[in-house]
Amino acid sequence: MFEIKFRDGLGRIGIWEIKGKKVETPNLAVVINPNKMPVSIDWMKKHLNLQIIITNSYILRNSEYKEDIIKKGLHKFYNFDGVIYTDSGTFQMYSQGKAKISNEETISFQQQIGSDIITPLDIFTLPRDNYASASKKLNETLERIKYVESINLPYSFPIQGGLFLPLRRKAVKYANKSYASVFAIGGIVPLMENYDFKNLVRIVSEVKQHALPSKPIHAFGAGHPIVFPLLVLLGVDLFDSASYALYAYEKRMICENKTYSLKDLNYFPCSCLQCKAKKPKEVSIEELAKHNLLMLFKEIEALKAAIQEGMLYDYVEYRISSRPELVKAYRYILSRRKKLLLNYEPSTRRRGFITREEGFKRPMLLIAKNRIKLAKTRIKRNLWGMKVPLSLLLTYPFSQVSSYKGEKEYYKETIAFMNKNPEQYLTDVLSYQFRNNIFQQLNYKKVKYNFSKTTSRLREVIYKDKVMLSLRSYDNIFVPTPEFIRFLKDQNADYPLKVYVSREAAPFVKKGKNVFAKFVEKCDNNIMPKDIVAIYAKEEFLGFGEALLTCNEMKEFERGIAVKTK
Amino acid sequence: MFEIKFRDGLGRIGIWEIKGKKVETPNLAVVINPNKMPVSIDWMKKHLNLQIIITNSYILRNSEYKEDIIKKGLHKFYNFDGVIYTDSGTFQMYSQGKAKISNEETISFQQQIGSDIITPLDIFTLPRDNYASASKKLNETLERIKYVESINLPYSFPIQGGLFLPLRRKAVKYANKSYASVFAIGGIVPLMENYDFKNLVRIVSEVKQHALPSKPIHAFGAGHPIVFPLLVLLGVDLFDSASYALYAYEKRMICENKTYSLKDLNYFPCSCLQCKAKKPKEVSIEELAKHNLLMLFKEIEALKAAIQEGMLYDYVEYRISSRPELVKAYRYILSRRKKLLLNYEPSTRRRGFITREEGFKRPMLLIAKNRIKLAKTRIKRNLWGMKVPLSLLLTYPFSQVSSYKGEKEYYKETIAFMNKNPEQYLTDVLSYQFRNNIFQQLNYKKVKYNFSKTTSRLREVIYKDKVMLSLRSYDNIFVPTPEFIRFLKDQNADYPLKVYVSREAAPFVKKGKNVFAKFVEKCDNNIMPKDIVAIYAKEEFLGFGEALLTCNEMKEFERGIAVKTK
Repeated sequence: MFEIKFRDGLGRIGIWEIKGKKVETPNLAVVINPNKMPVSIDWMKKHLNLQIIITNSYILRNSEYKEDIIKKGLHKFYNFDGVIYTDSGTFQMYSQGKAKISNEETISFQQQIGSDIITPLDIFTLPRDNYASASKKLNETLERIKYVESINLPYSFPIQGGLFLPLRRKAVKYANKSYASVFAIGGIVPLMENYDFKNLVRIVSEVKQHALPSKPIHAFGAGHPIVFPLLVLLGVDLFDSASYALYAYEKRMICENKTYSLKDLNYFPCSCLQCKAKKPKEVSIEELAKHNLLMLFKEIEALKAAIQEGMLYDYVEYRISSRPELVKAYRYILSRRKKLLLNYEPSTRRRGFITREEGFKRPMLLIAKNRIKLAKTRIKRNLWGMKVPLSLLLTYPFSQVSSYKGEKEYYKETIAFMNKNPEQYLTDVLSYQFRNNIFQQLNYKKVKYNFSKTTSRLREVIYKDKVMLSLRSYDNIFVPTPEFIRFLKDQNADYPLKVYVSREAAPFVKKGKNVFAKFVEKCDNNIMPKDIVAIYAKEEFLGFGEALLTCNEMKEFERGIAVKTK
Repeated sequence: MFEIKFRDGLGRIGIWEIKGKKVETPNLAVVINPNKMPVSIDWMKKHLNLQIIITNSYILRNSEYKEDIIKKGLHKFYNFDGVIYTDSGTFQMYSQGKAKISNEETISFQQQIGSDIITPLDIFTLPRDNYASASKKLNETLERIKYVESINLPYSFPIQGGLFLPLRRKAVKYANKSYASVFAIGGIVPLMENYDFKNLVRIVSEVKQHALPSKPIHAFGAGHPIVFPLLVLLGVDLFDSASYALYAYEKRMICENKTYSLKDLNYFPCSCLQCKAKKPKEVSIEELAKHNLLMLFKEIEALKAAIQEGMLYDYVEYRISSRPELVKAYRYILSRRKKLLLNYEPSTRRRGFITREEGFKRPMLLIAKNRIKLAKTRIKRNLWGMKVPLSLLLTYPFSQVSSYKGEKEYYKETIAFMNKNPEQYLTDVLSYQFRNNIFQQLNYKKVKYNFSKTTSRLREVIYKDKVMLSLRSYDNIFVPTPEFIRFLKDQNADYPLKVYVSREAAPFVKKGKNVFAKFVEKCDNNIMPKDIVAIYAKEEFLGFGEALLTCNEMKEFERGIAVKTK
C-alpha cells in the first residue's frame, strides 16, 4: 500500500507500507551481503534512519550462514525489524554468468527465511539483446512471476524488456493486473555503467507512463547520487545500493556529482565529519563505505526537501549540470515526455529558479503559454519568449519564478491595471486559473471589489455583500468561498474543478476533514495537484479543498489524502 | 609571500606564507568572536585542518577579555599557532553605524596583541555611494593605509571603491606598490546579501585584472559556498566566515546550493555524520555551527580538487546552476572578462565536460577557434559551431572535452589521415600547439614517422635518426626532444616558447631541477600554463619543461616553480 504525502514533477514523498512496516519514499534500500559487511547494520540504524534493506537470497543460500538464517529468520539474523527485501539471484546470473537456482527454489527459500518482499528469478535482459531475445526473456520472466503471484505474499514485479519500449510496456501491463507490492525496473545497470542515462530515462519514463500511479517504482541497481534526481523526477520511489560497499572496496569515494578514486584525491570534497580529520589516503574501507552511505542518503534527503518545497525541477536542473550525459537525458525527458510531465504538473508553486535554457521548456511554462490565450487583456509584455497579458503578470509562474534572463518587475503596472479594470483582471485570472473561458462570459454587474489601502492590491471580490473570492498573495490566484458557487449557480455556470465523494464521506468533509482517495467517486479529468477543487457528494456542495492528487490518482489510490479540505 | 602549486582558470592552489606560517589557498579564515563562540577552536583544529582564523580587534578591545589578550597575546589566548588575521572595526562602522576607534588606535592594538596580519580602519563604501562619495572614502582609506605601511608589519590592503571600477583600479594600483601581504576586497557584503553576484564579480575581476598576480586576494566577508566557485575561478584566494556562527544563531543551515531555515526543513540535505542521527528540529546551535563550517570547508576542498583536475570551469558551470543570479554573473565573466580569462588559460587539459550553453564560450574554445586557422588541412568537420580540420580532431580540446550536444567520434578518420598525410598532420598540430605558422613553411624532407603497430597512431617523428617529437596520448600534442631544437636551428627557425633563466640557475636546470620564478629573466609573452617551453640561459639551450606560470607571473613571482623541468 502506498500513499502520497508531498509531490513535485512525478516525484513524490510517499508512505509505503509492507506488512505493517512503513518506508518513507524516495528511499534507498541498502544492500547487505553478510559475507562482506564493511559497515554494521547497527551503525546504519543509528545514523541513517534505516527503514529498508535488501539482501540477496542466492548469496545467503550459498553462504555459511544459511542454516542460521533459516533458523532465526532474516529479521533476527540481521537484528533489523524494518522491511527486508530479498533479491533472487538474477543479477548474479548476469554478472557472474551463473546462478544455479531455480525460480521455485529461490522463492521458497525467500519465503522460508521470512523476506518481506520476495523477488522471483527474472531473466536479466541486456541492452544489446535484440527484440526477439528480449521478448523471449520477458515471456519467461512473466511465466515465472505467475508462480510468485500464486503464493500470495508481498513481492516485487521485475519489469524487463531491454531497450524495447513495447516490451517494457507489456511487462507493466501485466504488473498492473498483479497484486505486486513494487515494480522493479531491471536490466538498467549496464546503462548506468556506460553513462547511458538517456536510455535509462527512456525506459523509466515508459514504465511510469503506463504503471498504475499507486505502485511504488524501484530502479533496480541504481545506487549513485548522480542518477537519483532525474529518476526521482520521473517518479522512482526506491533505489538500492551495493555501491557504497563495492566502491569502498575499490577505494572509490562517492560524491554527489562524481566518483573519485582515493589515489587521485589530495582534497576531500566532503562534509562528513569522520572524513574531515583525515587525508584521503588514510581513510579505511569501513570509513569510506560509511561516507558513501552518508552521501547516498544525503541525496535522498535533498530530493525530499526539493519535493516538499516544490522545487524539484530547479534542483534537477542544478544537479544534471555536473555531467553532459545527464543533460542529454533531461533534454530527452522535456522534449519527448512532455505529455507525461504535464499529467503530473501542479497548478502553482511558491517560487522557482530557472538557471538553464532547458528550464524554459518545463511543463509549467507549456501550461502557462496555453492558458494565457484565455485572457482578454490586450496589453502584453514579453517574458521568456511569450507575450503575457498584463493582467497575469503577477500570477504564477510569471512573478514567482526568476531566471537568469533578467526579468523586469511588473508589479506596479499590474496593480494599476487591477485598479483600473478589476473586472477584466478578475475574469482573466479566473479563466487562467481554471483554464476555462466561461468566466469571460459571465455577468459581473453585481460584483464589487475591495482593494488594500496600503498596497492598492485587489484583496477581495464581493457578491451580494459577501466575499466570493480573495486574491492569494503568493501566487495571485483567486481563492473561492461558497459564495462563488452561488454566484456561478445564479448564472447557470458550473465550478470547473469538482471532486465527488461517496455519501458516507460527506459528513466528515463538511466537518473539514480531508478527502481520502478511497472515498472519491469521480472527478473532473483536468484536475491538477494544488488546484482548488470543489467537493461534492452527488449534487450537494460540501466545501473546497486543495488537490494533492491528480484526478487519475484520486480514482486509483486506495490510501492517503486526495484533497486537503480548507 | 605566495607561490602557486596548481591552477585552473584564475584559480590557484597556493602556499601563502606569513611570518613563517603556511596557509594553503584557497582557504577560509574562520571568524572568531570570543563573546560568541558556538564552536571551540580545539574542535576546529581537530576537524578542519585550520590554518588561519580572523578575529575582530574592535570587538576584542571592547570585550571583557581585553586585558587577558594583551597579556597573553592572541596566539596563546586562542591556543592557536596558525595565522591570526585581525580585522579593524570597519565592518562594525558599517553594520552598526558606530565604531569608536581611530585608525592609529586599532593598528596599535592589533600590533600589541600580536596579530599576524593587521588591517587598517578603512572606510566601508556602500553600493549606493555615488562616485564623489566613494572616491572621497577611498582617498581617506588610502591615507589611513599609509600609516600601517609605515609600521613595517604584514598587513592587509583594503580595496574599496564601491561599484566604481576606476576607483577599485586606483586602489589596486596603490596596493601593487605597497608591501601588503594580501589585498582585501571590501564593501562587497551588501552585494552578496542582495544576490547581486554580477556586481560582485564585476568588482573582483577588475581587481584581479590589475593586481600583481603574486598577491593573495581576500574577498572580505564572503562566507557562503554558493559564491566560492565563481570567486575562486576569478582568483580569490581567501574567504572568511562569520556566517557559520551567525546563521547557526538564526537557526539557519548552510548547504552548498542554498541556505535553509531549520523550521522549514523536514529533511536534512546533509552528509555530516552528526546531523544524520537527528531531526532538523533537534539540532543545537553548536551542531548547526559545526555543520556550517563543515559545509564551507567542503566547498573549499571541492574547489581544490577541481583545480587540481583542471576541471574548474566544469565545476563552476555545475555549481552556478543552482541560482539564476550566479548564472548572470558567470555570463558577465565570459562575455565581459574574456581577455582576463584568456590571460590565464592553460594550453591543455586531460578532460572536460560542457553541460551548459555557456560552456561553449569558455576561453578554451575561443583559443581553439583562433588556432585552427593555422592548419592547412582542407577536410573539416563541424564541432561546437566550428569547422575543425580533420588533422586536429584528436587534439585538445576536441576529443578531450565532451558536451551534451552529442559529438561524433573522429578517431578512426583522424588516424587514417595521419597515416596518409603525416607531414600535414605534423605541421597542423605543431602550428596549432605553438600558435605559430612557421611550421607550415619548414622543410620536412629529412623527417620520418613511426606509427604504432597496434593502434596505427603516429607515435614519433624522427629527424636524423633521432626522435624529435613524440605524440602525447592524452591530448595529441607533440612533446619535443632536443633534436627538435636542432631541427629548427638547421632551418634558421626559433622555438616559439622560450624561458630565459639567469646564469646561476643554468647548472641546476641542466641537472633536471625545476625552474624557480625568481631565476626567470625573460620569457616569450604568449606562454600559457601547461605549455612545453624551452629553457635557455642566454643562447644555451638547457632543456624543456612544462610551464606552471604565465609569462607575466614568471616575471613577477618571487617564490615557487615557474617551469617544471622534464
